Amino acid sequence: MSDLKPQEASPADFEEELWDLLRAKEYAVAAELLRNTRTAVVERVLDRTPPSLMPLAFRLLDKDVAVEVFSNMEPMLQSDLIDGLADEHTQDLFSQLESSTQARLLDEVPAEVAQRLLASLGEHERNVAARILGYPDDSVGRRMTVVAQELTRDMTAATALNIIRDVAVADYEVNNLTVLPVGSTTHKVLGLVHLPRLVRAEPDDLVADIMEPTQTVSIHDDAEDAARTVVYDRIEALPVVDEAERLIGMLTVAGAQQILEEAESESSLRSGGAEPLGQPYLSTSVLHLVKSRITWLLVLAVGATLTVQVLDYFEDTLAAMVVLTLFVPLLTGTGGNTGNQAATTVTRAIALSQVTTRDYIRVIRREALVGVTLGLLLGTLGLVGATLFFEFHIGLVIGTTLLVICTLAATVGSIMPLIASKIGVDPAVFSNPFISTVVDALGLVVYFLIAKTILGI
Amino acid sequence: MSDLKPQEASPADFEEELWDLLRAKEYAVAAELLRNTRTAVVERVLDRTPPSLMPLAFRLLDKDVAVEVFSNMEPMLQSDLIDGLADEHTQDLFSQLESSTQARLLDEVPAEVAQRLLASLGEHERNVAARILGYPDDSVGRRMTVVAQELTRDMTAATALNIIRDVAVADYEVNNLTVLPVGSTTHKVLGLVHLPRLVRAEPDDLVADIMEPTQTVSIHDDAEDAARTVVYDRIEALPVVDEAERLIGMLTVAGAQQILEEAESESSLRSGGAEPLGQPYLSTSVLHLVKSRITWLLVLAVGATLTVQVLDYFEDTLAAMVVLTLFVPLLTGTGGNTGNQAATTVTRAIALSQVTTRDYIRVIRREALVGVTLGLLLGTLGLVGATLFFEFHIGLVIGTTLLVICTLAATVGSIMPLIASKIGVDPAVFSNPFISTVVDALGLVVYFLIAKTILGI
Repeated sequence: MSDLKPQEASPADFEEELWDLLRAKEYAVAAELLRNTRTAVVERVLDRTPPSLMPLAFRLLDKDVAVEVFSNMEPMLQSDLIDGLADEHTQDLFSQLESSTQARLLDEVPAEVAQRLLASLGEHERNVAARILGYPDDSVGRRMTVVAQELTRDMTAATALNIIRDVAVADYEVNNLTVLPVGSTTHKVLGLVHLPRLVRAEPDDLVADIMEPTQTVSIHDDAEDAARTVVYDRIEALPVVDEAERLIGMLTVAGAQQILEEAESESSLRSGGAEPLGQPYLSTSVLHLVKSRITWLLVLAVGATLTVQVLDYFEDTLAAMVVLTLFVPLLTGTGGNTGNQAATTVTRAIALSQVTTRDYIRVIRREALVGVTLGLLLGTLGLVGATLFFEFHIGLVIGTTLLVICTLAATVGSIMPLIASKIGVDPAVFSNPFISTVVDALGLVVYFLIAKTILGI
Repeated sequence: MSDLKPQEASPADFEEELWDLLRAKEYAVAAELLRNTRTAVVERVLDRTPPSLMPLAFRLLDKDVAVEVFSNMEPMLQSDLIDGLADEHTQDLFSQLESSTQARLLDEVPAEVAQRLLASLGEHERNVAARILGYPDDSVGRRMTVVAQELTRDMTAATALNIIRDVAVADYEVNNLTVLPVGSTTHKVLGLVHLPRLVRAEPDDLVADIMEPTQTVSIHDDAEDAARTVVYDRIEALPVVDEAERLIGMLTVAGAQQILEEAESESSLRSGGAEPLGQPYLSTSVLHLVKSRITWLLVLAVGATLTVQVLDYFEDTLAAMVVLTLFVPLLTGTGGNTGNQAATTVTRAIALSQVTTRDYIRVIRREALVGVTLGLLLGTLGLVGATLFFEFHIGLVIGTTLLVICTLAATVGSIMPLIASKIGVDPAVFSNPFISTVVDALGLVVYFLIAKTILGI
């Protein structure tokens, strides 16, 4: 069904219509239009709505829709929106957010705004939000859902069901009540109960007999690692405990997905040499886009000056045989590509935990072997091609160089991600620049040394 | 907690111990070891177990664990494993798989094996599997879970709960019973009921009042699009219908995640210029790795010969001023990087549906502007740098070239992903090679034209 493609899930006409209505101040009609649209679609459209119209559109949303939409916005956008809303509206909205969402927002907005927002909370909520803010950035503590209710081992299934029946949660969170933690009298985590098993149990079965063992994470653990575990291990929810092993909250599948999506954006952008924007593309200023790229571009450019030095060093060789110049981009390019292939494959294998840093010998040996094979294939082609269009000795130089460069590149390409994950940085980010720099420079050195030997310059 | 990092989730010692036990034929001890390990960890360790030991290890798993582990393996690995298992063991295992898993496996194994496996199924199961195999590859039909039970509008919550209590499902699938479809007498999809709402409803409330509206997908729709909807729209399960709008199955969150994980592997590998392996890295042969990369490498190499021709065309200019050669890798490199930054940012924005092909004018204008700005910054540095180390006219050439190349690259880089998603190919895959080829060649032409003009060669 075509409306499934994200591109088409926010139909142009709907979007344009909404914006025109807002510009024409037809708020009642616009509100009606929004009311008849799925929340997920509203979210996507708001992401694309010009900053000038965004607050207007948002204010027209029904209250609980507004809370849900706001909860799923990127913090930077939330903060911009807060600026655009009247104070009482803001505080009303803020007070209804999930504690971890409150904390993330407080972290984003200017101090005095944060003060006003905190002031709008009841004492308990204020304390919870403050505590969450106390946890380190990127820690699970920052992203967990505070537990609404915990069960005990000696409860019957019937009692447990009654608790789930009566627990007070925001309407848009009811559907998340599918896994509940079982706690001891000292609130240590004993296990998890899945609602379907509870429903299928006999009324007088004990929770102890239905619950499943579970691992836990500490509030201080890295949020991304925890999220990965939730998704890879297909866990419905991961209990989060404090230093005293007491249950504090849960990392839900939804929460984990949000964390991983952000992480994925981050690493895919960084691997492409750009910083994450922290806000939707179209509402990002050109200057912000430039800032997000210039550093990396400079690093790579400085790295590339290495090639200038190498070429400078071999200037006489170049002067003697200008024809050698013609192959420089081809050779460095092929080296870079071979290196990237190896790096991408190994990086992915690490991400899927099919490979660990302990396997470095196996991995490097494999990639070196792959490199040699690729080098032999490309080298032969290079030999033939260059011989046909130029002459045999040139062909020999190009062929040999390709063989060496491919081997070199594949090996370097396989080592980089291993080092990255050993020192705990994102392989996808770390590998790219090093490979291009190292392989380009080394490749050229190899090229000219081979050329000097074979052509006897 | 350290055991959260995927790398460490399959501890070296456990793995080594298991392998040693298997080599020593200490099967009882090995079985015990496996019995005390979380299924998810077992899966990861098997992914890394040498092909020679894998079937041995697998045969030691408890029956229902074996079914779950097998269900989550990559089809190619499943097929290898089937070869390594005794026939009756295979058929017994196969008959317990979820129909869509059976279909995927039948697709992978050799025809005669498929025959034997199908023969091992009861008539009904055989028909279901056969029907699923009838759906196009990559269609939702191939990946859906066949619906165990559907509810009707006029049921009471109590009746619905009883149905969920009594429905027969494999033990490892019970936890998925959190969303149930509501069907009409003609099995048209009327909505979804979430178990928590059912539990919280009054016993005599009608399903009609608890159910939530839902969109549906056709069995023929693209599985990845459907999976994306499930994740982005935070839908617990998406009903799958046939041509007559009749409910056939559901795409679950777990199913959607598996689909997206495969898609992500595919596109991250392809964007790095390698084909997906379809099996864990360490159990992939070097030859298979070479096959997965050579085509792309050739395409890019052939593309790169364009640069040879460009340089060849300007050979006299190069001969006249060898110094120009020194900057070739720096310039092409910077162009490539700028192009990739633009492409990655736009690709990600498209993936998050913050940008659609309809926005092409806005996007291209933005990126061109970003390109100019980056070009001005780098160009100035290039001008100063090259003037200091060489002389002013060289500096002028480099500076101007960087300005033009950055603008060009950012623009090209932003157009590629838009074209890709317009013609429905993966932007992450499509952009990479074209950018490097186009930008390298064009960049060099620009470089020499500018050089000829400024240096008057």
